[in-house]
Amino acid sequence: MSSEISWKGYAYGYSPLLTLSIKDTKNWDKLEVIDFKPKQQGDFDVDVKIQFCGVCGSDLHTASGGWGEPMLPLIPGHEITGTVVKVGPKVTEFKIGDRVGVGAQVGSCLDCRLCKNDNENYCREKVDTYNAKYPNGDIAQGGYSTGIRAHQQYVFAIPKELPLEQASPMLCAGLTVFSPLKRHGAGPGKRVGVVGIGGLGHYAIQFAKALGAEVTVFSHSPNKKNDAFELGASHFVSTGDDNFADSLQGKLDLIICTADVSKGIPLDDLMLTLDVNGRFIMVALPDDKLPQLHAMQLATNGALLGGSHIGSKKEALEMLDIAVKHGVKSYIQMLPMKDAGTALKNLKDNKVRFRSVLKVDI
Amino acid sequence: MSSEISWKGYAYGYSPLLTLSIKDTKNWDKLEVIDFKPKQQGDFDVDVKIQFCGVCGSDLHTASGGWGEPMLPLIPGHEITGTVVKVGPKVTEFKIGDRVGVGAQVGSCLDCRLCKNDNENYCREKVDTYNAKYPNGDIAQGGYSTGIRAHQQYVFAIPKELPLEQASPMLCAGLTVFSPLKRHGAGPGKRVGVVGIGGLGHYAIQFAKALGAEVTVFSHSPNKKNDAFELGASHFVSTGDDNFADSLQGKLDLIICTADVSKGIPLDDLMLTLDVNGRFIMVALPDDKLPQLHAMQLATNGALLGGSHIGSKKEALEMLDIAVKHGVKSYIQMLPMKDAGTALKNLKDNKVRFRSVLKVDI
Repeated sequence: MSSEISWKGYAYGYSPLLTLSIKDTKNWDKLEVIDFKPKQQGDFDVDVKIQFCGVCGSDLHTASGGWGEPMLPLIPGHEITGTVVKVGPKVTEFKIGDRVGVGAQVGSCLDCRLCKNDNENYCREKVDTYNAKYPNGDIAQGGYSTGIRAHQQYVFAIPKELPLEQASPMLCAGLTVFSPLKRHGAGPGKRVGVVGIGGLGHYAIQFAKALGAEVTVFSHSPNKKNDAFELGASHFVSTGDDNFADSLQGKLDLIICTADVSKGIPLDDLMLTLDVNGRFIMVALPDDKLPQLHAMQLATNGALLGGSHIGSKKEALEMLDIAVKHGVKSYIQMLPMKDAGTALKNLKDNKVRFRSVLKVDI
Repeated sequence: MSSEISWKGYAYGYSPLLTLSIKDTKNWDKLEVIDFKPKQQGDFDVDVKIQFCGVCGSDLHTASGGWGEPMLPLIPGHEITGTVVKVGPKVTEFKIGDRVGVGAQVGSCLDCRLCKNDNENYCREKVDTYNAKYPNGDIAQGGYSTGIRAHQQYVFAIPKELPLEQASPMLCAGLTVFSPLKRHGAGPGKRVGVVGIGGLGHYAIQFAKALGAEVTVFSHSPNKKNDAFELGASHFVSTGDDNFADSLQGKLDLIICTADVSKGIPLDDLMLTLDVNGRFIMVALPDDKLPQLHAMQLATNGALLGGSHIGSKKEALEMLDIAVKHGVKSYIQMLPMKDAGTALKNLKDNKVRFRSVLKVDI
């Protein structure tokens, strides 16, 4: 295995034409191969030769400008797996040849209280895997590429039982639902609702079940009922049915909402399915604002509406361990990396069951 | 002491003229004495001869139509203290002469899971103390009156050390903040923010301190700084100051918001003062909706936005006990009950420090 990576990736907005197009948020599915410079080599950095990268909703939000104007050129992708090909002199966790992954975060201060108490995913100086700058000005580029260089803290060992392409989408989609499930008490005796069956939802169902909870799935697509049961749900509720929430009032302890709450999700009704002091955690980050709430809605059952941001390394490693022990399975559609644009279009058109994974072809 | 109460109370909307006026939500400060019929006597009911009744924001919201058209005539008031003058044949908790109180709830099914696990304040069949109907059609009328009849579950023994006029406003205002403080973990080592210093806020500061938390008070009135410290706060923050939240980012575990979040409260900034997975609990119930939120705001620190509805009897009794042990003091302005309208006007004009209590004069 070569110890040097040829740093190339599929980027948006390289040529002036595409830069312009991105601003129209119309041509976000056109990517072309560019050379890029990884971050400056640090003593604790690990170079990962990428083999797979999952295609996340964030890639689409960022590329289409939904979360604001991205830095260009932009190489998306933060569900990365591959092999260690080089380690900095102070790297202790990894050696060349190790099977590893990188998720949606590649940096933080490593020194604050949050970094020290397994909340580094909330560090105020966190560096996202792409569309971000390191404090020294280096640009962080993502995983639709041949390689990534990252501090060992942000590199995760992949258990030998887990194929890399299976692990890839867990590193953002999986962790994004696993972290709030853990933090908000999903476990034996708990009743967890999952809204939406897609990249995130299909993990939320499986991990909630693996943690011991009883799972109720809400979907606006009645034809996803079989998927829900296959993934481990005990109950399926079609949110298109009139008064779907009536018989469920107060029945759930926690809801993980993977769907876009700004677009037609019946938030009012769903909140009422929570037990006293139950929690509704939004893990999708829509471009638009939430529907306006009235404090009275939350007072009725003392419910809480919350957010979440990926997860910590500690949670990531626990998740991978649980995935192996409980046979959590990534439902993936593999494409060559040159078809990244198609994968993004499929995601936008809600055609993916349940995650696209790109295989490096550069 | 007479065992029979002459059931009279200060009501809105008795005469046709006033009924009309209420609909204009203009004359909510005009009350007149009416005779009323208490609920039908039940085996577990206690008749309380009222001595004091606090004046709560709910009285104003209800009378002014902010929460919708009230049932008329309406006798407000749900911070009631007095003396037991009659008990039903199956009453076990009280005897004639006992010093007792009644808060903002007078009924529930007493049979559901919530009623049985000290969450009766969230029972779906709960009956409010006024502007409400019992299942049999009896009208519940409040404490601006000579007496109240209620099931013993909704009657609270007042500790002998606590003067009745001191206890009165604790039964809604106090309990409304005490319950979320307890449920959301206020205690030693916890950092609690309190937004607003008024009827609810002045208890939130004292009870948070009594529970062992360090208290930061947020107020838009810099002149309330001394009050904040007198009540036990360690820090005071004037929300009118530019960038007031900057130095406080991530510093609080829990915020109890007693101010109207629909009106100019800098919710975005306040949410950022929460530590990871911190909670912002709204205990005021504004007439209007909240400002529109973006899921991103809650994702930044994994924060939760929640509601709360009064508290359970168990919590009420613990609160009264803590009030005695820690010398929690109600800051009250006493008025004769005939001045209920003035008390309501003072409340609306934000002139009360910090609770008006009406003394029965009928």
